Amino acid sequence: MTSSSPATSVSPDTLPPADAKTRVSGFMQHIQNVICKELEDADGGGEFREDAWTRPEGGGGRSRVLRSGNVFEQGGVNFSEVWGDTLPPSILKQRPEAAGHRFYATGTSMVLHPHNPYIPTVHLNYRYFEAGPVWWFGGGLDLTPYYPFIEDVKHLHQTLKDACDRHHPNYYPTFKRWCDEYFYLPHRNETRGVGGLFFDYQDSLAGEFYRGDKPDSPAAQYSKSIGSQPARNWEQIFAFAQDCAQSFVAAYKPIVEKRKDTPYGDRERNFQTYRRGRYVEFNLVYDRGTIFGLQTNGRTESILMSLPPAVRWEYGYQPEPNSPEAELYEIYLKPQDWLGIEQ
Amino acid sequence: MTSSSPATSVSPDTLPPADAKTRVSGFMQHIQNVICKELEDADGGGEFREDAWTRPEGGGGRSRVLRSGNVFEQGGVNFSEVWGDTLPPSILKQRPEAAGHRFYATGTSMVLHPHNPYIPTVHLNYRYFEAGPVWWFGGGLDLTPYYPFIEDVKHLHQTLKDACDRHHPNYYPTFKRWCDEYFYLPHRNETRGVGGLFFDYQDSLAGEFYRGDKPDSPAAQYSKSIGSQPARNWEQIFAFAQDCAQSFVAAYKPIVEKRKDTPYGDRERNFQTYRRGRYVEFNLVYDRGTIFGLQTNGRTESILMSLPPAVRWEYGYQPEPNSPEAELYEIYLKPQDWLGIEQ
Repeated sequence: MTSSSPATSVSPDTLPPADAKTRVSGFMQHIQNVICKELEDADGGGEFREDAWTRPEGGGGRSRVLRSGNVFEQGGVNFSEVWGDTLPPSILKQRPEAAGHRFYATGTSMVLHPHNPYIPTVHLNYRYFEAGPVWWFGGGLDLTPYYPFIEDVKHLHQTLKDACDRHHPNYYPTFKRWCDEYFYLPHRNETRGVGGLFFDYQDSLAGEFYRGDKPDSPAAQYSKSIGSQPARNWEQIFAFAQDCAQSFVAAYKPIVEKRKDTPYGDRERNFQTYRRGRYVEFNLVYDRGTIFGLQTNGRTESILMSLPPAVRWEYGYQPEPNSPEAELYEIYLKPQDWLGIEQ
Repeated sequence: MTSSSPATSVSPDTLPPADAKTRVSGFMQHIQNVICKELEDADGGGEFREDAWTRPEGGGGRSRVLRSGNVFEQGGVNFSEVWGDTLPPSILKQRPEAAGHRFYATGTSMVLHPHNPYIPTVHLNYRYFEAGPVWWFGGGLDLTPYYPFIEDVKHLHQTLKDACDRHHPNYYPTFKRWCDEYFYLPHRNETRGVGGLFFDYQDSLAGEFYRGDKPDSPAAQYSKSIGSQPARNWEQIFAFAQDCAQSFVAAYKPIVEKRKDTPYGDRERNFQTYRRGRYVEFNLVYDRGTIFGLQTNGRTESILMSLPPAVRWEYGYQPEPNSPEAELYEIYLKPQDWLGIEQ
């Protein structure tokens, strides 16, 4: 197929199966369960508490929060499944075909804020949308270290690359670049951290894997440069999203286990709480998921569960030259080819 | 005049004087000086440190910050004067006549975060714009208490009303409502605090005083209900803006002096740092000044000087029934006719 317009021109295998919503929503709940269980295990003491909620306009979710654990100062893992009359303007701009149609969205999102500044903060989100003639998967995972170890960064990226490579050799290089581009704070000229994977609007249309709003960005350029891709069907994309989501535990848990007993003091803690301010800035000013939630009258406490329990802002902060803090800025807050860097 | 279209239909006294920019910018620097001096006096120890900066695209400013004072945990008072080729889209949407014209903007903004939770946080901003055929004044002041005293709230509102009443009897009721409407967090269904004054796009056109983007809001409705106002000239509006800005010291300093020795403990401090999260949410998600700064490639450290030095988020927080914290939510985070409330 060559057209992105209405259902009449769509060949049968580009359509979702009849039980698509049930299957994806089932998976999103399953991955929430798996992640919570593995995180409780890694924490060795803290437990998730669940709030189930319903949304007056349609749908609901279950928010799970672990607070004041041994490892995690706060961890939130949220499942939601919502529907309504119309998608918000920010999405309709990207997918005008969805205008005038009811929508369905389900997803799991997670943010973890460890106590120990040697353990990175991590975020994961996978989501699925249907609206009239269109459907798509989106999601990703990104890592935000304070005092990074290059081996941890390589381990995480290698695990994500392995998951991608099982589906398409061009997924990792495209979605790794897209992640660098998405988790970027223009007003700071910094990435949010060392990235990971990010993709959005993945559907069965042939073309490029990049489906974003920045046609000249590195991710878009790379996607174009690798040539037109064959159409993928719904099952293939769902299988890819599942594999990515399931790789989280193998990507992150070993880092927690390796770093959780690293000693730290006020200096490291102060830097961590300062840097957490960037997380707040990103989520409130730029994050698509946060904006979608607030625009669709979502459950505020669940949407803002990503914000850190303790944060500092400090006017004019500059790291000392040749310090570990300066190294973070010089090496880790820029897009890098992590798997190509010599250890 | 009855038309808001181009310069040819504008009568002479609606134009700014030849030295408008110099005079307004001079006043904005003067008020920065006065405020800093009075705050140092109230603090009794802390001193403002200044960073002068220039903006590559045109203009610059001087940022002054007081940190770890006796009274103020952080206080920022910023003067800026910038110009450039075009106003950002968020403003052009409100003032399309400015499209295709160079712009000039000058202003002073301030946010104070006291240590003591019995002293409210306060914000002030006054600004002036010129762009082709249009010019306008904007600004205001709003108070965000944690443990409010009704007499403090009344004192502040009375002081602002007195300043307004010297210029027009309908200013206070219009701009008080506009403040309630502007400093509002829809995702929390809370005002930022007890309000004060807010106005924008005040120029010499006859009509209503409300010049906002919510034609059905209480401020807009009130402004319509009081009937069409006569045209005001530049001098009258500048005099009004000056009077408002100058009333800050009388409005706020007595509250500091009255509350600075009130004893407090962890409970009050925890509630204050939690509530400061709302300040961050407002400034990053909704605040016009912050968005203008980030969109015009402003100086990030000066724009985000408003963010508090220490902040907490806590999932699912609810105040205990019948506590002082519950009273804040029940009485002080909603629009109220403060001057009509019995003490």
